[in-house]
Amino acid sequence: MAVTSEPVLAIDVGGTRMKGSVVDAAGRELHGCTRPTPRADGPDAVVEAVVAFAADLTARAGGVAAAGIVVPGIVDEDSGTAVLSANLGWRDLPMRSVLEARLGVPLAFGQDVRAGGLAEVRLGAARGARDALFVPIGTGIGAAVVLDGRPVSGSGFAGEIGHLVVDAGGAACGCGLRGCLETVASAPAVARRYAARTGRATPVPEIAAAAGRGDDPAAVAVWAEAVDALAGVFATCATLLGPEIVVVGGGLAESGALLLDPLRAALDGRLSFQRRPRVVRAALGDRAGALGAGLMARERLQAGVGSAR
Amino acid sequence: MAVTSEPVLAIDVGGTRMKGSVVDAAGRELHGCTRPTPRADGPDAVVEAVVAFAADLTARAGGVAAAGIVVPGIVDEDSGTAVLSANLGWRDLPMRSVLEARLGVPLAFGQDVRAGGLAEVRLGAARGARDALFVPIGTGIGAAVVLDGRPVSGSGFAGEIGHLVVDAGGAACGCGLRGCLETVASAPAVARRYAARTGRATPVPEIAAAAGRGDDPAAVAVWAEAVDALAGVFATCATLLGPEIVVVGGGLAESGALLLDPLRAALDGRLSFQRRPRVVRAALGDRAGALGAGLMARERLQAGVGSAR
Repeated sequence: MAVTSEPVLAIDVGGTRMKGSVVDAAGRELHGCTRPTPRADGPDAVVEAVVAFAADLTARAGGVAAAGIVVPGIVDEDSGTAVLSANLGWRDLPMRSVLEARLGVPLAFGQDVRAGGLAEVRLGAARGARDALFVPIGTGIGAAVVLDGRPVSGSGFAGEIGHLVVDAGGAACGCGLRGCLETVASAPAVARRYAARTGRATPVPEIAAAAGRGDDPAAVAVWAEAVDALAGVFATCATLLGPEIVVVGGGLAESGALLLDPLRAALDGRLSFQRRPRVVRAALGDRAGALGAGLMARERLQAGVGSAR
Repeated sequence: MAVTSEPVLAIDVGGTRMKGSVVDAAGRELHGCTRPTPRADGPDAVVEAVVAFAADLTARAGGVAAAGIVVPGIVDEDSGTAVLSANLGWRDLPMRSVLEARLGVPLAFGQDVRAGGLAEVRLGAARGARDALFVPIGTGIGAAVVLDGRPVSGSGFAGEIGHLVVDAGGAACGCGLRGCLETVASAPAVARRYAARTGRATPVPEIAAAAGRGDDPAAVAVWAEAVDALAGVFATCATLLGPEIVVVGGGLAESGALLLDPLRAALDGRLSFQRRPRVVRAALGDRAGALGAGLMARERLQAGVGSAR
């Protein structure tokens, strides 16, 4: 159809940066750029910045047929609502209708991690998989639970893997619980736990490398605890959902085999009859969210205005 | 369509009994009966018994338009395969094609727990829910994970909630792991753990009642451990999937408020930002599996032969 051959606009709105793309029908990026997110200026300023960014990208593209915009937090794709996006200061905002009215094109509004999972399943490391988990590990730890080829949303609440408790009575988490996965295995947690043992502020890649060499007991211990916590959570997902593949992304995945090799071994030891998922590194890096937003925009066009996904 | 107004056949094949129904287009049971499962005679005998039971029910109904047959274990609905059904001695058997050829009508072949979950969502305690968990607790503990109104299968591996580890290093489980939920919160586990403390073989309802009265420290402790393990697993599901409702079934649910009241309180204490699911008792009892099989048969008809679900 003619309409779906026109380019679409995709924006991944993060807590510090917005990544924007204009994507053609073949998935090629015709234009891409980033811009700061004016988080400190309040939630309305973020809305205005997204609208201005979208208008500029649209003008450069000479018009777009649809837009996909994804944000962090609890996002209900079906109603197009930002239920709770702490990084943007948004709460219970009907962003799809607000942005659609401002932009004047059909809009898909979704969550960044689920968009990234959609992109990894369609275009990236999990291409062709039907049941998959996409787990970006960075400042936080999220997951896209992909079942039958689609990320599931749970009205926005699905995939909060970073808040599975792995160490009952452990460190306090920002969510109010104790011992969440994020308190053990996120990048800041690894750095903090290493500093607590050694008194040294050390970049995570150095901790990972030292753990790999085995010559630094503190690094070995902290890294093993992170790996073990992740393996436990992946075993939980394997038991509950039976994914074929787990795609690990985010900053921690940049450690490559230093993370994935022990993670595969630890996961293997925690499963019996369950389907054993392949554990692989993400392929799309920090472009996954915007690529997923582009896919969502394209689907929105194909499905017509009645569906946001 | 005329074809879908004809009755369908539904059989829930358990390890000891088969439950059969003939169901009209309005979901009314026109005829129902049970028959033993000849498990001791081997896997082929079970197949023959299912075929004979189906033939008898079909004859009494004067013909059926389709059949739904559900069994325990790891079942891949999409390929119609019994991947591993230990209770029936079946392994990697293409039961849908085998039974469809023998019965001569379109057949939906599925897993008993997922069928039960479908029935509870369409007809029972979770009626109208979109994202739900159905958890029958009896000799084992299974789950149907219902997302967007449909049980998810994970090629047959989804929903093995009974084998989430709740007590690392705990009692050996039949699956080969240690400390699985089933070793703490299944009906036999509750009885066994109570007997280990007291030396007394005691029916689970009596243990539950004593725990409720608070006058038997062993009962209080064993029941609290079971409740806590279940609450932990439900919190995991809430965090990962965001269900609106958890439907508790099976023998343990017959304890009613003695189970559900402390379970709700324990779950509440384990959640922060997550959607808090309602925790309710199943409505359909041991008819859930057969009712679900009937729904699947009806859907098989409506979708045509191309889809088994």
